[in-house]
Amino acid sequence: MRAEIISVGTELLLGEVTDTNAPYLSQQMAQLGIDVYHRTTVGDNEHRLVAALEQAQANSDLVIITGGLGPTADDITKQVVARFVNQPLVGDQAAANKIAHYFAERTEVPAPNNHTQAEYINGGRSLANSVGLAVGTYYYAQATQTHYVLLPGPPQELQVMVEQELVPVLRQSLPNLQPLFTHVMRFFGISESRLAALLADVIAQQSDPTIALYAQHGEVTIRLASRANTSAEAEKKLMQCANVILEQAGQYYYGHGADNSLANVLVQKLQQEHLTIAAAESLTAGLFQSTLATIPGVSAVFYGGFVTYATEAKERFLGVPHELIAQNGVVSQATAQAMAQHTQKRAQTDIAVSFTGVAGPGQVDGLPAGTVWIGLQFKDQKPQAQEFHWPKMTRQEVRQRAVLAGLMMVLQALKKQ
Amino acid sequence: MRAEIISVGTELLLGEVTDTNAPYLSQQMAQLGIDVYHRTTVGDNEHRLVAALEQAQANSDLVIITGGLGPTADDITKQVVARFVNQPLVGDQAAANKIAHYFAERTEVPAPNNHTQAEYINGGRSLANSVGLAVGTYYYAQATQTHYVLLPGPPQELQVMVEQELVPVLRQSLPNLQPLFTHVMRFFGISESRLAALLADVIAQQSDPTIALYAQHGEVTIRLASRANTSAEAEKKLMQCANVILEQAGQYYYGHGADNSLANVLVQKLQQEHLTIAAAESLTAGLFQSTLATIPGVSAVFYGGFVTYATEAKERFLGVPHELIAQNGVVSQATAQAMAQHTQKRAQTDIAVSFTGVAGPGQVDGLPAGTVWIGLQFKDQKPQAQEFHWPKMTRQEVRQRAVLAGLMMVLQALKKQ
Repeated sequence: MRAEIISVGTELLLGEVTDTNAPYLSQQMAQLGIDVYHRTTVGDNEHRLVAALEQAQANSDLVIITGGLGPTADDITKQVVARFVNQPLVGDQAAANKIAHYFAERTEVPAPNNHTQAEYINGGRSLANSVGLAVGTYYYAQATQTHYVLLPGPPQELQVMVEQELVPVLRQSLPNLQPLFTHVMRFFGISESRLAALLADVIAQQSDPTIALYAQHGEVTIRLASRANTSAEAEKKLMQCANVILEQAGQYYYGHGADNSLANVLVQKLQQEHLTIAAAESLTAGLFQSTLATIPGVSAVFYGGFVTYATEAKERFLGVPHELIAQNGVVSQATAQAMAQHTQKRAQTDIAVSFTGVAGPGQVDGLPAGTVWIGLQFKDQKPQAQEFHWPKMTRQEVRQRAVLAGLMMVLQALKKQ
Repeated sequence: MRAEIISVGTELLLGEVTDTNAPYLSQQMAQLGIDVYHRTTVGDNEHRLVAALEQAQANSDLVIITGGLGPTADDITKQVVARFVNQPLVGDQAAANKIAHYFAERTEVPAPNNHTQAEYINGGRSLANSVGLAVGTYYYAQATQTHYVLLPGPPQELQVMVEQELVPVLRQSLPNLQPLFTHVMRFFGISESRLAALLADVIAQQSDPTIALYAQHGEVTIRLASRANTSAEAEKKLMQCANVILEQAGQYYYGHGADNSLANVLVQKLQQEHLTIAAAESLTAGLFQSTLATIPGVSAVFYGGFVTYATEAKERFLGVPHELIAQNGVVSQATAQAMAQHTQKRAQTDIAVSFTGVAGPGQVDGLPAGTVWIGLQFKDQKPQAQEFHWPKMTRQEVRQRAVLAGLMMVLQALKKQ
């Protein structure tokens, strides 16, 4: 089963829009057991779209075409593909009703071509669009044994249509696929190359599941992938491999799942343990707290805190003694610890975290950009602080890395208790 | 001059990496006056790369190939293209020295193929890589009158090579291009469709410069673009058009430039006026302050502030009276104004901004998700507050939109004074 993606849209060729549909579709197809071998982007131009369709028909079993299903004159995809497979377009009554209802509710007048958004290729299946107005199409061309899929360009419409409509249709039409099962493991505090070195033997010995490492946003993820007929069969292989990896690199591991994050794992853990948290941030200036607050339900554990950007704010907001900062420097172990201690006292939480450092560009008190102290006051234990050096990062990277390091410090303290 | 981009990499076809190089290259070529008509993505596979090259040679004058210049066995791009144009690879001595120096400085042993990263196509030009180790190539095939360009896959290497090496080479090799000049205008507080309606006449009458609207991250930008022989000639046309647009929609305009932002414009304005700012954030939980802090030099104007996530924190950190919140509700005009007033008093800044609202999911005090009050204490003026409703947005979108609305409120207050 060889698949190909054709992305249609002049805005893609102009570079005004980055094509995120194609990688999304590739991932979805891989999970179904379908390999994407080729990808083409053409403008809203009949001649070039037909050339791409001819090439795709010659090389692929499944051709997925995205974009150009809208009502304006430059949206020609559906019409061109219908002519290419020698079929007329036919109306989907439910979709036509939805369009009529949409405009009845509004003062807008439908464009002359709005009804075409409810049309699909005769002999195929209409794929409902629960987000927008344009339906998709699944069509199987018997003569060339080619499966065609038409999907809308806007990513939010395309993704819902793929998950709700296309995946079930393809599962039904292509019954012999062996799906891919994956397990994503998440690590922080180790570089991709060091983790690869640590796991060199495991990686060399392992062929099923496959092991792939990715570095992104300061974390490293390991994706284990295995084809199997049932999820139970896959699960067994994936968990065996995951356990071997945990034996080698468990200290850097914090959780699993493709959509997981350090903030999510920490908030869940705090909820389980009924602990509250506050923070005082200098160089990160609220990024730690606003990262925590991305997690729904965080209000049960997150009280609030301080952004002490100016040195004086550390004294005025937190009550850190002027002399302590003057003697030790604003970026120091003593200041980080005092910030965490005083924050816990003011907020009356179980845990307080503090950040002070040099985001750059430029030095502070002779300390180079990328020097960061993170303080932690954990219940009534002695205050701690850890020093980090990220000398080659940009201002934003230093701040983001500091937030992750702070989240990991709290998680590790929770594990130890 | 018809151009085509071929992206090489199995990771792209698997959807593990989103191709941002292709849109970047499209934009760069558009600025040079070169139109990209076609884009193809193939895996690290000789047969399929050759098929893509054959098609590109038949259809395009300039073929840009990205990716596959590394030292590992699956990096085959340079070798395949060299065979395709019947040329051997030759070494770039400076690049070879750089690679030798790189490994001499480290304990790593160079891979057997590392020296190939210093090779380019005979008869062409080596394009230096100031970020990584692999050189690029510019090669003109006389027989077919095709220009070939090879670039590395990592975006940070590719972008520097394009700007420092490729653009000057193309300007020299293709002297008759008419470059594209652009002027990007930035708006906030109006939707793309409303701005388009407001400017309908201007857009209909205008053909040079062209006018394109884009909605992104809560803002709307207008890109004016014009081809011209000199920048002075372009500047005149662009500024005339910009002034007509400002007459219609000036109240939503906040600045210009493709890389500009509300935070950047505000920080610059505060610096010019020698004003300081602080904030108290509930639903945004530090996102406003950490957004300000992304701008280098912000420490001259940004003092710090509070994250008052829990209702009690608004009382304890700021001193907002318990009764005021109990009587008016935590998401209310009175609470927003009191938060701003008390923050200004505690921080002793010229300006204080406050955020209280319902990020969602779920209601607060019967108010639906997306209800936000932003308070502003500007010098010794009366405190203000503005109410916003973003009912259809996600939790994150509500928070991000609130931050932008807060930045715009301060900017407008600065304009009025």
